[in-house]
Amino acid sequence: MREVAIVAAGMTNFGELWQSSLRRMFVDAASEALEAAGVKKVDSIYIGNMSAGQFVGQEHLGPLMAGELGQAGAAAARVESACASGGVALRTAFMDVASGMSDLVLATGVEKMTDGADVTAVLASAADQELEAYYGITFPGLYAMIARAHMQKYGTTEEDLAWVSVKNHRHGAMNPKAQFGREVTLEQVMKSTPVSEPLRLLHCSPVSDGAAAVLLCPLDQAHKYTDRPVQIIGTGLATSSIALADRSDMTYLDAVQLSAVRAYEMAGVGPADLDVAEVHDCFAIAEICCIEALGLVEKGKGGAAARDGLTALGGKIPVNTSGGLKSKGHPVGATGIAQTIEIFEQLRGDCGKRQVEGAKVGLTQNMGGSGASSATHLFRRV
Amino acid sequence: MREVAIVAAGMTNFGELWQSSLRRMFVDAASEALEAAGVKKVDSIYIGNMSAGQFVGQEHLGPLMAGELGQAGAAAARVESACASGGVALRTAFMDVASGMSDLVLATGVEKMTDGADVTAVLASAADQELEAYYGITFPGLYAMIARAHMQKYGTTEEDLAWVSVKNHRHGAMNPKAQFGREVTLEQVMKSTPVSEPLRLLHCSPVSDGAAAVLLCPLDQAHKYTDRPVQIIGTGLATSSIALADRSDMTYLDAVQLSAVRAYEMAGVGPADLDVAEVHDCFAIAEICCIEALGLVEKGKGGAAARDGLTALGGKIPVNTSGGLKSKGHPVGATGIAQTIEIFEQLRGDCGKRQVEGAKVGLTQNMGGSGASSATHLFRRV
Repeated sequence: MREVAIVAAGMTNFGELWQSSLRRMFVDAASEALEAAGVKKVDSIYIGNMSAGQFVGQEHLGPLMAGELGQAGAAAARVESACASGGVALRTAFMDVASGMSDLVLATGVEKMTDGADVTAVLASAADQELEAYYGITFPGLYAMIARAHMQKYGTTEEDLAWVSVKNHRHGAMNPKAQFGREVTLEQVMKSTPVSEPLRLLHCSPVSDGAAAVLLCPLDQAHKYTDRPVQIIGTGLATSSIALADRSDMTYLDAVQLSAVRAYEMAGVGPADLDVAEVHDCFAIAEICCIEALGLVEKGKGGAAARDGLTALGGKIPVNTSGGLKSKGHPVGATGIAQTIEIFEQLRGDCGKRQVEGAKVGLTQNMGGSGASSATHLFRRV
Repeated sequence: MREVAIVAAGMTNFGELWQSSLRRMFVDAASEALEAAGVKKVDSIYIGNMSAGQFVGQEHLGPLMAGELGQAGAAAARVESACASGGVALRTAFMDVASGMSDLVLATGVEKMTDGADVTAVLASAADQELEAYYGITFPGLYAMIARAHMQKYGTTEEDLAWVSVKNHRHGAMNPKAQFGREVTLEQVMKSTPVSEPLRLLHCSPVSDGAAAVLLCPLDQAHKYTDRPVQIIGTGLATSSIALADRSDMTYLDAVQLSAVRAYEMAGVGPADLDVAEVHDCFAIAEICCIEALGLVEKGKGGAAARDGLTALGGKIPVNTSGGLKSKGHPVGATGIAQTIEIFEQLRGDCGKRQVEGAKVGLTQNMGGSGASSATHLFRRV
């Protein structure tokens, strides 16, 4: 298997991008990555996208986006695993390069969520349609049940949840591409509108538009395109029951844990080796469960991590220095690639005020639904 | 790159399967493949599916299908390239095994089209939403324009189109899994209802439900699972402009040609080496354009091929011995895998009355939209 590196990245701002279409956002992000590497032509393009079909009536993004980018002819296809679509796009691009099939591959993600579709209903199609969505439950409700179970089992509090949001907004305030580039106070979070108790508005990631792209090539060719490549040293993809009710322990995201074990084993590193991590905080409780499943904290101890500063910038293992899904925004198909870009930039030392000094090894974890699919990747500065 | 083989296959009947759901069809096909190989657990599952989101309100097929199949935990994801989704699933599975990431990988496809969605509108989301679908054109109209252009440029006739249907129905009448397992006469085709002139009802593939699955592993492990493996010797994926109006010659499917060149080069074989081929006859004109782009006949000569018996069983290069999309049915995401199964069975000598005697090398070509994406694969009996 060939070793694989990321050599360039491009990303739109995340937010309500009324002036920009699905294809325009894609081209903005992907052409930024190509220009940064001085690349005119790629072999393949993978597009992480959850549901352009339902959101804007457009399937078949492979040829559409290849053509719009001036890359008609390239091998191109969409990959989908709900909100983990970006992570799966990265993994597919990795396989394409690792296998020797292609040398220059774009791993991208894009989602246009603000064009009038019933966003909550579309997102609910990432749950089990027959056993969950049909009965009316949506993701705030599913994650609220996870939060209640975590509170009951481990004594996690509403304030613990709120600290995750406070931390991620503090980080996001230093990210010029974030949808909400401002801090929030503990009091603001605790007094925000209840959405599905115990989750309040400021525990929830927003509805967003955006696109992101990274360019991959064999590690031994990376220096043609950049003097600071970042190697992808591990990839893990795993699944669990799509319906929350089918899992033996709602607080335990077994797909996240399994995807992490696979990535750690492939890379030969463990949680203690990490300098920085981007994890899937679609709701505050998700970050708590994910850092447990990834082994960043002990099982049941996730609730204290943000409150105690462990996962803040300057803490033992900074989590979501980009602002996370909560503050940076969550255009669902783009999220896994945006996480990758944050780690790429951290390991290159390009993160300015939110830089983790001397970061060498980083992790991204991107999940779909209520944790039914998870893609974990590990990266190292070369 | 590791060499890759197919060792087992499973497939539902194609048709209007009122009694079967999306997940049930998937499990029927995939478990048939697993049982044939005596395999309990796979590493990865790729699911070709165009639009379960729009058809039945279900995205996130990776964990859903892995779980339903008793394979929760496996790496699993959906891949989409409209009607070429199955071909792209096969290619992704190939890369997974070829790279050394996984040993046992299911490449699958599934589509449930008869559950009440506006099928023609959903399919139109494989066209350019802003430049084509928005103005009301659907695929019968797009392919009718291709047909008119081919008639004008090369003198192809309505009768030439009809012979494609007659041939494919003759083949399909020997396929017990075909949606329309009966012959049609030239007169029946020529007198069938006009859909979008010059295309009549019997020039068009039907709306179908169905699922198909093949099991891949490294070639050097294949004899653990079967005494008659079939090697995947070439894979090519290519794109063209998604909008028909953006192409310089509507009759020339450049993505098909490019995908074939890539597959031929990888395999070290050419059109003259083929014993049997499955090509994407969503409309009769599509088969004519595809066999030209694949080099099975000269450019402009595709119209005569079915009429002259060249592409019939017993002809120089039998095309669509399964009955093709026209007679076998076209559950869009499953089609590329069903094509693969026909070639797998032809190369193993399992096709009964429609067997091509002594077939050693076969081809599948699966495309999306009006030919904007195309996946071509080449196979050899081991």
